[in-house]
Amino acid sequence: MSRYTSVLLACSTALAALSGPAMANELRDAALEMFKPLPSTVPAVRDNPITPEKIVLGKALFFDPRLSASGVFSCNSCHNLATGGDDNLETSIGHGWQKGPRNAPTVLNAVFNEAQFWDGRAEDLKEQAKGPVQAGVEMANTPEQVVATLVSMPDYVAWFKNAFPDEGEPVTFDNMAKAIEAFEATLITPAPFDAFLNGDDAALTEVQQAGLQLFMDKGCAACHNGVNVGGTGYYPFGVVQNPGAEVLPEGDKGRFQVTKTADDSYVFRAGPLRNIALTAPYFHSGKVWDLKEAVEIMGSSQLGEELNEEEAVAITAFLESLTGRMPEITYPVLPAETARTPRPSGEVITK
Amino acid sequence: MSRYTSVLLACSTALAALSGPAMANELRDAALEMFKPLPSTVPAVRDNPITPEKIVLGKALFFDPRLSASGVFSCNSCHNLATGGDDNLETSIGHGWQKGPRNAPTVLNAVFNEAQFWDGRAEDLKEQAKGPVQAGVEMANTPEQVVATLVSMPDYVAWFKNAFPDEGEPVTFDNMAKAIEAFEATLITPAPFDAFLNGDDAALTEVQQAGLQLFMDKGCAACHNGVNVGGTGYYPFGVVQNPGAEVLPEGDKGRFQVTKTADDSYVFRAGPLRNIALTAPYFHSGKVWDLKEAVEIMGSSQLGEELNEEEAVAITAFLESLTGRMPEITYPVLPAETARTPRPSGEVITK
Repeated sequence: MSRYTSVLLACSTALAALSGPAMANELRDAALEMFKPLPSTVPAVRDNPITPEKIVLGKALFFDPRLSASGVFSCNSCHNLATGGDDNLETSIGHGWQKGPRNAPTVLNAVFNEAQFWDGRAEDLKEQAKGPVQAGVEMANTPEQVVATLVSMPDYVAWFKNAFPDEGEPVTFDNMAKAIEAFEATLITPAPFDAFLNGDDAALTEVQQAGLQLFMDKGCAACHNGVNVGGTGYYPFGVVQNPGAEVLPEGDKGRFQVTKTADDSYVFRAGPLRNIALTAPYFHSGKVWDLKEAVEIMGSSQLGEELNEEEAVAITAFLESLTGRMPEITYPVLPAETARTPRPSGEVITK
Repeated sequence: MSRYTSVLLACSTALAALSGPAMANELRDAALEMFKPLPSTVPAVRDNPITPEKIVLGKALFFDPRLSASGVFSCNSCHNLATGGDDNLETSIGHGWQKGPRNAPTVLNAVFNEAQFWDGRAEDLKEQAKGPVQAGVEMANTPEQVVATLVSMPDYVAWFKNAFPDEGEPVTFDNMAKAIEAFEATLITPAPFDAFLNGDDAALTEVQQAGLQLFMDKGCAACHNGVNVGGTGYYPFGVVQNPGAEVLPEGDKGRFQVTKTADDSYVFRAGPLRNIALTAPYFHSGKVWDLKEAVEIMGSSQLGEELNEEEAVAITAFLESLTGRMPEITYPVLPAETARTPRPSGEVITK
């Protein structure tokens, strides 16, 4: 009898020696060795004290399409807070209708990732925020033009002064990124899994509890652990078995492009799994739309484990317990352009 | 001495027989002959009783990029509620990075327009809402695919049932449009001009009051009147003097394309002027970025009147009093796709 079946039996028939609550306690204790519930407050971040003024500014910037050269894309375009903090595309569509190289990760709870991007090339969210703004296939803008845009609008200048009161010239590209990081640090989504870790047995269904047990027993939690159930370490995709070029395109060598170390070929940051049920399609390639299928691929490629139907269903059910409650966000009202605001251009410049 | 100068003198020096408040009362009485303040409640619309359930659904649909074939554009992309209800582009960028033919008008207070689009080809907002969803250069979707997308998500099906409780199959393209219209009817922005019309003398500065007087005296209000200060009648652009091909491109014959009547060549719906200071660039061509310049062009092309600097400044100041307070909008949380949801495609199909 598999571990999975015995867990289910124990839970559903109550014939086992352990009662339901005792089972849940045992499972919780084991889970707390590997995972942490979300904190109840906004976390502190490196070199960037978070203040209400910075959050207000960061929210405006996050939603402002004028950070892009074309005036079409904001951070929220690809990290849409209405749809799980991502764009539900294989890879994002950006400036000039160009396709990005990798699937857009969710911004929700991203503050808890050890580093940002699939290859971890940005140390934190304030470094990350500067990337897409400048990427030719995303927002295609320059730091100079972003600053020129922001200083042209008196409300923005006032908001930057409020957010960075000790600085003589607060409207800078770096401060833009810091404000965005401050806002993003508020994007925390407590989920049933947190309630379970915090002591509420009823927060997870029996199948979800069985899935959590399997998630730990099978080894998924070896890479996907911590507060974000992932996002903290780097591992080769296809550690046991190559998932095939469709899912793992040969041209994208992952962290190798950052470290230039052969060992880092096809190495990626373990995906953080909070809200994973909202953020299909999956993997850096965005090639898999079905969560259960993604679980099965992970089983074979990373664990050398052909999960049976019940196991895959239970683990998927557990992953659904990571879908959290979004913070309530009032849509911002942005400053109007002035005569000095650089005009948008959709032109695609090829270098 | 011009009427404008005498108004300014009367206001600023208090030498005239009329005191400031009496002047304001006279101006208000004249203005109330031509304009109406916004109502304090959401207006009723034709054939579409507005309910809270319909507004909730409509808001979700308005912000949902999955109404577009690519999954990139929502209604809010071009009618961005953060930036005056439009996109601040000359003409919108849509599917495949194609440019739309005309400047996107604001959705704010659009419920008060007699008809929708620059040429009035949609009778109301529910008819309008179906246009961009299907336009190849905008969202490039089909009614069938939209319905397939919506029915694939159980939350949407439930929301449609709540919004259209008497219908057996409520998830239809028409009901999508009705829900969007219901949400858009809530997008009403009371402005200082309304406060002035409602009796608050201090709501408009002296220059704004002088501008209002000029707006009526010079004849602007002959076309731009009613609750939306425009949006209710059709007039040739260049009635006195052609503004030039840059501003009035020859290829766009306006309402002629709707009525096929020679008299309707270069005829457009008079622009509704609420929030005009937020919605540069101006005119159907989106070629003019400066509001005062747009006022001057209107003076010469429509009234045969070369406005002097003070007049243009005062009228522009009055137009700024039409910038209203946005309703507070909580950003929606949208349902997640399912296995049955049609996948997004950025492919550009040329017929």
